Amino acid sequence: MPRDIFILTEAELRKTVGLDVQAVDVVEKAFAALGTGKVVMPPILSMAIPDAHGEVDVKTAYIPGFEGFAIKVSPGFFDNPKLGLPSLNGLMILFSARTGLVEALLLDNGYLTDIRTAAAGAVAARHLAPQKVETAGVFGTGVQARLQMEAAHLARPFRKALVWGRDRAKAQVCARDIAERLGIDVVAETDPEKVVAESQLVVTTTPAEEPIFKADWLHPGLHITAMGSDQEGKNEIDPAALAKADIFACDRVSQCEKLGELRSAIAAGLWNRQAPPELGEIVNGVKKGRESDDQVSICDLTGTGAQDTAIATYALEMARRVGTGSVIQS
Amino acid sequence: MPRDIFILTEAELRKTVGLDVQAVDVVEKAFAALGTGKVVMPPILSMAIPDAHGEVDVKTAYIPGFEGFAIKVSPGFFDNPKLGLPSLNGLMILFSARTGLVEALLLDNGYLTDIRTAAAGAVAARHLAPQKVETAGVFGTGVQARLQMEAAHLARPFRKALVWGRDRAKAQVCARDIAERLGIDVVAETDPEKVVAESQLVVTTTPAEEPIFKADWLHPGLHITAMGSDQEGKNEIDPAALAKADIFACDRVSQCEKLGELRSAIAAGLWNRQAPPELGEIVNGVKKGRESDDQVSICDLTGTGAQDTAIATYALEMARRVGTGSVIQS
Repeated sequence: MPRDIFILTEAELRKTVGLDVQAVDVVEKAFAALGTGKVVMPPILSMAIPDAHGEVDVKTAYIPGFEGFAIKVSPGFFDNPKLGLPSLNGLMILFSARTGLVEALLLDNGYLTDIRTAAAGAVAARHLAPQKVETAGVFGTGVQARLQMEAAHLARPFRKALVWGRDRAKAQVCARDIAERLGIDVVAETDPEKVVAESQLVVTTTPAEEPIFKADWLHPGLHITAMGSDQEGKNEIDPAALAKADIFACDRVSQCEKLGELRSAIAAGLWNRQAPPELGEIVNGVKKGRESDDQVSICDLTGTGAQDTAIATYALEMARRVGTGSVIQS
Repeated sequence: MPRDIFILTEAELRKTVGLDVQAVDVVEKAFAALGTGKVVMPPILSMAIPDAHGEVDVKTAYIPGFEGFAIKVSPGFFDNPKLGLPSLNGLMILFSARTGLVEALLLDNGYLTDIRTAAAGAVAARHLAPQKVETAGVFGTGVQARLQMEAAHLARPFRKALVWGRDRAKAQVCARDIAERLGIDVVAETDPEKVVAESQLVVTTTPAEEPIFKADWLHPGLHITAMGSDQEGKNEIDPAALAKADIFACDRVSQCEKLGELRSAIAAGLWNRQAPPELGEIVNGVKKGRESDDQVSICDLTGTGAQDTAIATYALEMARRVGTGSVIQS
């Protein structure tokens, strides 16, 4: 019996789903669900393809109350730029959570991952950044550097941003892009310490394998979202900073222990507190978030299948509403 | 930059890929590759959706020398028949092994899994069944009972088949279908012991959770392919039979230990030999297969991502050759 499957291309998805308050709300809902402990989220399936300097990750999660669940396949092939192709690609498949039938193919080439990753930064800022952020800083000069500043600005509409990257020219282009997008003053700084000293909110978005962020740069009233480390071997934040912070939270403890900043802190023997709170538990008020503007907070984001299920469900709903996409019978 | 993605529906795939010697050769090639130890095959990602009596499995493998790798998503939702829908569904996605880009979406609703699963039975029969099989038996009356007899017949063209199932009426329908398909004499037997006693090759295809096949039914010159157990909790063959057989082989030891007949034998303390040979090692001649017609052999099949990569690659190649399918730009 042939059934309809909805297909959305990257171009259609870009017209349909943007980084806005609605998208952040959807991702916040996913974290709230994760925080209840009722989400089913298996460990990430990960396969290396060393012959091509490639890897592929598969993430999924079932969120009770959501009509569907997404399976997201994210290939990263790091020789692609030599071929004129992007390193990151992939798609999401949305299945009915009632029948397991394929509902939609979201051929997003990683676009929805960009949005849900940035939206998680906004959720972290909503619940952990000080109420008033005058200046925000970002480490890194890629797509997420831009999107994370845009996301943070939705939660804390700062008036100035600082960009640091190893490549000064790229930092300047990135600063100009963010300034244009947000209509605020953005400066490319050469000294990462200065970025931190002047900011109340810093997002780290680099693939660093040695910490860039020093523990003694922490200052009262600072929030850091560390979203660059999502694999063994990556580490942006000095492991000593985690125990020094008043609040250290994870998107998912079981993932951060293996893939996030928490992994390096554990490996260095510098994590001796109990299991950190998860962002969803803070969203739900089950665990404490920021209690005063003077506290120092760090949020470790590795990216969860729950975010993928949430953004895919939302994308399909929006596409149906605006009448975009095509249908295939299978 | 929009790129072409090839889409094949179940109807198109059914017209393009059948259970024939070519398909068996392709799957044999996947086992040969597995047997070299050079295939990258991560553990199966598995997620339960208890609210809907459902589960979803994701399998994949990278086979050096293959241009692509498949990611297969197999949902099983066991309340579907009440809604008039099949329990098993899903799709395969074929990626370039050089760039990670999506090459093709194979919307097969599980059809290619049926074919590659049956083809693995044919590979087991090729390398483990006695040279001469007069009579073959099958336990179970579903799709795989039919396909496994068809596959075994490709490897060992037996003249008679016996079918046993708990439901006698279903066994009769199944026997009639196999007879029609293979043009041989097929009888529905009520006594499973008799099926085994009269057969030189038996395939077990049931979802049994308690063994049906008794260890003292083993007789010289018998080969058994056990393909029903692919999950914790399933068990078709009396655990004592495994150690009693002259040859016990696995499609993949690391999977059979968790999901196959080997799991039950280990749990019962009845497996005390060294790690069993893998089917691919026998295909390659690295490990011993059957050495005489009097031996008893058992092959434990749980289903591997390598088979999925092989059949998906083959399906795309065949579809291109015959000019079926459609293209979407993304």
